[in-house]
Amino acid sequence: MNYPTIFNNIGKILIVEALLLVFPAIGALIYGEDTLISFALTIAALALTGMLCTRKKPKKATIYAKEGYVIVALSWILMSLFGALPFYFSGYIPSFTDAFFETVSGFTTTGATIINDIEALPKSLLFWRSFTHWIGGMGILVFVIAIMPKTENSSMHVMRAEVPGPTVGKLVSKLRASARILYGIYCVLTAIEIVMLFAGGMPLFDCIVNSFATAGTGGFGILSNSIEGYNSIYAEIVIAVFMLIFGVNFNLYYMILIKQGRQALKSEELRWYIGIVAASVIVIAVSLISTKHGVADSFRYSFFQVASIITTTGFSTTNFDTWPMIAKFVMVFLMFIGACAGSTGGGIKVSRLIILIKSGLRDIKKAINPRSIETVKVDRRTVEEPVVKSVSVFFATYILIAAASMFVVAIDGRDFTTTSTAVIACIGNIGPGLGAVGPYGNFADFSVLSKLVLCFDMLAGRLELIPMLMIFSPYAWSRKYS
Amino acid sequence: MNYPTIFNNIGKILIVEALLLVFPAIGALIYGEDTLISFALTIAALALTGMLCTRKKPKKATIYAKEGYVIVALSWILMSLFGALPFYFSGYIPSFTDAFFETVSGFTTTGATIINDIEALPKSLLFWRSFTHWIGGMGILVFVIAIMPKTENSSMHVMRAEVPGPTVGKLVSKLRASARILYGIYCVLTAIEIVMLFAGGMPLFDCIVNSFATAGTGGFGILSNSIEGYNSIYAEIVIAVFMLIFGVNFNLYYMILIKQGRQALKSEELRWYIGIVAASVIVIAVSLISTKHGVADSFRYSFFQVASIITTTGFSTTNFDTWPMIAKFVMVFLMFIGACAGSTGGGIKVSRLIILIKSGLRDIKKAINPRSIETVKVDRRTVEEPVVKSVSVFFATYILIAAASMFVVAIDGRDFTTTSTAVIACIGNIGPGLGAVGPYGNFADFSVLSKLVLCFDMLAGRLELIPMLMIFSPYAWSRKYS
Repeated sequence: MNYPTIFNNIGKILIVEALLLVFPAIGALIYGEDTLISFALTIAALALTGMLCTRKKPKKATIYAKEGYVIVALSWILMSLFGALPFYFSGYIPSFTDAFFETVSGFTTTGATIINDIEALPKSLLFWRSFTHWIGGMGILVFVIAIMPKTENSSMHVMRAEVPGPTVGKLVSKLRASARILYGIYCVLTAIEIVMLFAGGMPLFDCIVNSFATAGTGGFGILSNSIEGYNSIYAEIVIAVFMLIFGVNFNLYYMILIKQGRQALKSEELRWYIGIVAASVIVIAVSLISTKHGVADSFRYSFFQVASIITTTGFSTTNFDTWPMIAKFVMVFLMFIGACAGSTGGGIKVSRLIILIKSGLRDIKKAINPRSIETVKVDRRTVEEPVVKSVSVFFATYILIAAASMFVVAIDGRDFTTTSTAVIACIGNIGPGLGAVGPYGNFADFSVLSKLVLCFDMLAGRLELIPMLMIFSPYAWSRKYS
Repeated sequence: MNYPTIFNNIGKILIVEALLLVFPAIGALIYGEDTLISFALTIAALALTGMLCTRKKPKKATIYAKEGYVIVALSWILMSLFGALPFYFSGYIPSFTDAFFETVSGFTTTGATIINDIEALPKSLLFWRSFTHWIGGMGILVFVIAIMPKTENSSMHVMRAEVPGPTVGKLVSKLRASARILYGIYCVLTAIEIVMLFAGGMPLFDCIVNSFATAGTGGFGILSNSIEGYNSIYAEIVIAVFMLIFGVNFNLYYMILIKQGRQALKSEELRWYIGIVAASVIVIAVSLISTKHGVADSFRYSFFQVASIITTTGFSTTNFDTWPMIAKFVMVFLMFIGACAGSTGGGIKVSRLIILIKSGLRDIKKAINPRSIETVKVDRRTVEEPVVKSVSVFFATYILIAAASMFVVAIDGRDFTTTSTAVIACIGNIGPGLGAVGPYGNFADFSVLSKLVLCFDMLAGRLELIPMLMIFSPYAWSRKYS
């Protein structure tokens, strides 16, 4: 294990976090809030630690796969530990565990909250809380790659660990250029959403934080009843459409930019994604028409909520915990599936679902004709066997981690629905579940142990299992393999 | 597709079923019950259909993998359709869907019931209901292989489709001899259990039917409160121990017979199985001590229920739906895991869990050292890569089928716990779930559609997915590949 490189890279990330915290600090200054000192202290702590870590230049800058995963896992944990300080120092979240949970939930774009009265928080903390979504959405390491002057090719391992999906393709030959393109698209889309929400009459501060939460597919709202509080169909539609937009693989936007839009629209993952959204909207709307609302309202609520859950954002415009059981089950499945690979969304990802279903069908065909040679194809190209296998193993590991977590959270003695959906909502980076953690509930009442397990799940879900599992594996730290 | 062979084989199975129905018919005669005519009619229908199917000798007797799966899937469905007739004709189960559900639940050794007042049934029907467990436990096709005078080597495909587990090994070089050994062990163990229960003072009829239900790991009881009704610690312990015995891979008993007992005890699957049972008993007992019972009773209930659920039998001595949440979650995980491969139990099987966990760990190691060569080893032997992959795909398919089924069952609008555990209990061949389908509930109130989906799940779970998925796959019936 190349410790000097690991320290050096983590140091850089902490310094970047210090710089990012300047924004909410300025906010505290503008609004004259008492949180300024908390932000200043946090920035100082980050800068100091960051400088200590980067003081020694590593002799070898090479990063192997193992170091890449360790850097990603440790920096996400440290970012969250430091990012929790403003909440804790300012006294608005008196328990450090709670502050850590809230920050992990922010960076991982989960959006699960432990705050009972969100409207009591000062604006600078609300800004920081939503800003963590935006930072975590595209990934802070991708950001570091984008802004650092010289990036070694071996950073690919870092990017692979942070960008979601079964495979990672570079957009252009230079990694730094790829990272810049991704962040460019991300910034432009976020800006468009801010402008469009503002045009609909939403206050500017709300436009910014809600766009951050949409862009990162996070879902922290600043009103106690989320987007429902604005009571604006216009805002709902804009946010729903942008949630869906941020749930698409960003590579497709790049293809549109370089005028390969037609090719982008042929993407099998995109078609499945649209198909699943359409089917879910219809099924839920029909179930709502027959029980709760008129036709128009049924489609309105259904569309918003499906967009919110499949992209794993977690905004709500209605309490879907009171919906008919079939609608709730559709929601739970959407929680598992999640958005497209290479988007800011969580879950298992549509592309993995496609590969899973196709490899299941392939196994049936194989059983019918043992001598036939069948390959799994996506976008008319054969998916290599190691990828097919790793997707199946990923899925199995995902379910096993969820099962083990439910087991620990069950010690709290909450009901079955709350326990199981709390875990699903955290590992899938969604936010709200059903029961006591439904859209109008929160995660405040879990024990410290459960909260830590859920933090692990949020990080494992965001970083797609391997990095988080690895740092808890003795094998990774064994000298034998260093 | 070699239709003549398929017809011929299915015909043989139906004739065997007719012969097996003679036992309950004799029972009806002895007890002077009005069900005699229903049994007679069913036997006649089976014999007639069976003879029509076997009238033409197939020119080629060869069975390929595809035919093997189709024979298994179709004969299980037909066996259940015919097996439902005595319940239906006699009027004790007035709806044919319900009678079919009950019979599928019997043959697949699930033990989920739709009968509200079980004690109102005549003895001959109770006998047949429990006998289906015994027949389904080891598999009727294995039985056919065991008794038929000349069995071609290609029957291996049939055996592979019916015997649970990731791989199937022949005990001895001749398949018929293997099948006979398996049935021999099965009969002897069942006989020992009958004698032991009888020695404890249980009425002979009850000893027989309860032993059938234990041997097949089925779980149909003949008292409305299952084994609790006997109020006998002796009977509980005997049944619990035998449930665990029938949950072990039968190959190990053969090894003991040929004096390789020491080798058998080294089986990794056996050790995991014992470990999981011990850990679960302790966790549940501790949770019960702190909430419900004294130390002795906590261990008593915990041991019986863990044995019942991990072996997917489903007997109960207490209403575990009222247990603390942590105990209930342990139960749900045991439902997923199930018993050992090559036993009469259902679920995913311990050996698959081992391979899943080991391949997950392997992937982490691979991520740490991409160039390292790591294989998954069980019992110190390398598991071949196609087996590792098929286990992962099996698990993913299992979860996807469960998810899709929950989706359909959710249309009924029952609560989350009932809907999800009903599906888990059926696809895992357990029987009781939680909520309305808990140990004191039943499956009577589901819609016809839900019941049919649950029947599919029970069959898919018992036959380990491929055969049931295949007969619904157009690819299997396509002329192109016939």
